[in-house]
Amino acid sequence: MRVVVQKYGGSSVGTIEKIKQVASSIIKRKEKGDSLVVVVSAMGDTTDELIALAKKITDNPDKRELDALLSTGEMISSSLLAMTLKDLGYDAVSYTAYQIGLKTIGNYGKSLIDDIDGSKIRNSLKEDKIIIVAGFQGVNEEGDITTLGRGGSDTTAVAIAVKLNGICEIYTDVDGIYSVDPRKYSKANKIKEIDYEEMLELASLGAQVMHSRSVELGQKYGVPIYVGLSNSDIKGTVIKEVYNKMNMEGKAVTGLATSDDDVAITIENISYDINVLSNLFEGLASRKINIDMISQTSPINERVNISFTVPKEDLKESMEVVGIYAKKDCISIDEDITKFSMVGIGMKTTSGVAAKMFKLFSKNNIKVKMITTSEIRITCAIKQEDKLKAINIVAEEFNL
Amino acid sequence: MRVVVQKYGGSSVGTIEKIKQVASSIIKRKEKGDSLVVVVSAMGDTTDELIALAKKITDNPDKRELDALLSTGEMISSSLLAMTLKDLGYDAVSYTAYQIGLKTIGNYGKSLIDDIDGSKIRNSLKEDKIIIVAGFQGVNEEGDITTLGRGGSDTTAVAIAVKLNGICEIYTDVDGIYSVDPRKYSKANKIKEIDYEEMLELASLGAQVMHSRSVELGQKYGVPIYVGLSNSDIKGTVIKEVYNKMNMEGKAVTGLATSDDDVAITIENISYDINVLSNLFEGLASRKINIDMISQTSPINERVNISFTVPKEDLKESMEVVGIYAKKDCISIDEDITKFSMVGIGMKTTSGVAAKMFKLFSKNNIKVKMITTSEIRITCAIKQEDKLKAINIVAEEFNL
Repeated sequence: MRVVVQKYGGSSVGTIEKIKQVASSIIKRKEKGDSLVVVVSAMGDTTDELIALAKKITDNPDKRELDALLSTGEMISSSLLAMTLKDLGYDAVSYTAYQIGLKTIGNYGKSLIDDIDGSKIRNSLKEDKIIIVAGFQGVNEEGDITTLGRGGSDTTAVAIAVKLNGICEIYTDVDGIYSVDPRKYSKANKIKEIDYEEMLELASLGAQVMHSRSVELGQKYGVPIYVGLSNSDIKGTVIKEVYNKMNMEGKAVTGLATSDDDVAITIENISYDINVLSNLFEGLASRKINIDMISQTSPINERVNISFTVPKEDLKESMEVVGIYAKKDCISIDEDITKFSMVGIGMKTTSGVAAKMFKLFSKNNIKVKMITTSEIRITCAIKQEDKLKAINIVAEEFNL
Repeated sequence: MRVVVQKYGGSSVGTIEKIKQVASSIIKRKEKGDSLVVVVSAMGDTTDELIALAKKITDNPDKRELDALLSTGEMISSSLLAMTLKDLGYDAVSYTAYQIGLKTIGNYGKSLIDDIDGSKIRNSLKEDKIIIVAGFQGVNEEGDITTLGRGGSDTTAVAIAVKLNGICEIYTDVDGIYSVDPRKYSKANKIKEIDYEEMLELASLGAQVMHSRSVELGQKYGVPIYVGLSNSDIKGTVIKEVYNKMNMEGKAVTGLATSDDDVAITIENISYDINVLSNLFEGLASRKINIDMISQTSPINERVNISFTVPKEDLKESMEVVGIYAKKDCISIDEDITKFSMVGIGMKTTSGVAAKMFKLFSKNNIKVKMITTSEIRITCAIKQEDKLKAINIVAEEFNL
């Protein structure tokens, strides 16, 4: 029997009324004969409310305790959903991370799934139960409760699908993945199938539909992931390996994504000593600070200027590390940054995408502050005020 | 080093401000050199709010899922308290029932503590940590989350004190145990020391200060239990073995308790067949329905009338059982019941207490509907409108 792992996000289970709707769509699926494991996020704004409670105590809550606190949100929604299904006459059971042996490694607040002991889930599936799993949470080697970071329930769902050799369906409040955020570009097209790699670039760049680690996991184990609305006939998007079958003459650019969540740090006149630079970046990495764009001037007198972007939330911690290697008056921060990215596996085979973009930007007076490229994406840092203009001219030009 | 197990109730941790006050009284105690384990209830009305959420789904929520849901309340308060202590520079750690291996047996919603794996707590105490334990919860043999019933955090605290050979302090919103509820009799005296047995009678009869199972546990293992206000110089009450040392010439009656939580069921004209009656009461017992008072008329033509009281919340389930053994028109329900009890180990050696009470009641036109006695208590069922009058005349007479 095929195992279907579904995930319902916080807005889908935001009220008891909505939990009942989710239950009815689970039942519809169950009646088709699938074995069902359902991963849920916390109801609505529960996680934010719990964080607000912790912030009343301190600006810097202990991370172990914060994880223990936040894990309750998903326990509440999962038990309520199981309760609803039982009340409707379906055998359901809710499980926490402890109960299904979802082991994590790494730091509190952004732990990585190490393994899942699938036996409890498998036994319950054999008993024809609908299994409801509290998403977002895990247990580390010390037996402490951990969380997987924002959006971590997606990763919980994909990890379970991997473990059970199932397929994964992520139900959310958007009806699929769009080439451009429809709120910013009304003519945006929905993508029917998107390659893991393209989705990864879009997810990590702020498309905000999927937790990027869940896409990585799907890619690693070849688990296709459906993203769409629940209780709806509108078809969503399937994330899978499309690269091999892709039309080489197809689009160069699949999608656009922008993000205002980063800030650029510039260090002027730092020693061009590979040890200094690698220590700096290792120092940041060891604190799990995600550096995205890096640009560096050519060395003059063995000294260089270097700029890089970090997530806004990590700015304070980043500055502590930077402070070790540079004097205060050599460091500057630019908060007026939008990361603007074009993504497409077609870029591998289509040349001139970057050139076209630069031409468009210069014609429209959009200043590019930094730029990085990978095989399948081009990202520029631009001013926030230029964001909407950039989206519209690029989407128009590349027919997104 | 002496281990002190403290328990703070829901009203003591009802807000972040109050959690901070609890933290400061924990710290004061810690500074005296004691090893501290702190058990907490859910914040304020959290448990009621969670129950209300479940009741929005169904009047009869699945018991396994309800326990999973309710257990989150104590996880929230325990992690917030640990967070507060850490923020104040004290090493603290919160644990769930899973983490300290608090195993339970019996039904969901009213599970009994079977054992606690003390090793995790002991190791953390060795590291000089302040341990915060989520009260009220446990884990059964199947690995499901269970709860211990209302007030179960008291039992959690005493059980940990038993396991660690420590003493137990229950902090609540009353400053000790009174001979009579001070809200009902303003001249009531606070009791300095009370015997486990007296406290048990008072607790089970609605004194509502202590969870009676916690007192039983304290009695069984000889763990003294202090009950009082936190952060206060007002001395509370110690529950311990005072019987052996008691002044035999002392008071006959130690305290009064009343409860409006029961309802009387009367079955008329039921067969006086010991099998029928024992099946009836076994049927109720097997559903864990607590029958308190029983009275029965003398058999006429092998048939009797029988009355007994059950908790209001169990009325519906009780009627199902009763329905098996009696016709509908032979069953009547009396909801206008106050259980009025006098408790005192002195009753063992003082005669005439019941007679005195009856005289008082008849002089004051208080009708006694049912009566039961044990070695150390007398309980009458009276009309609810007579409750305050009964309290006042008895308290005055017995100098409580």
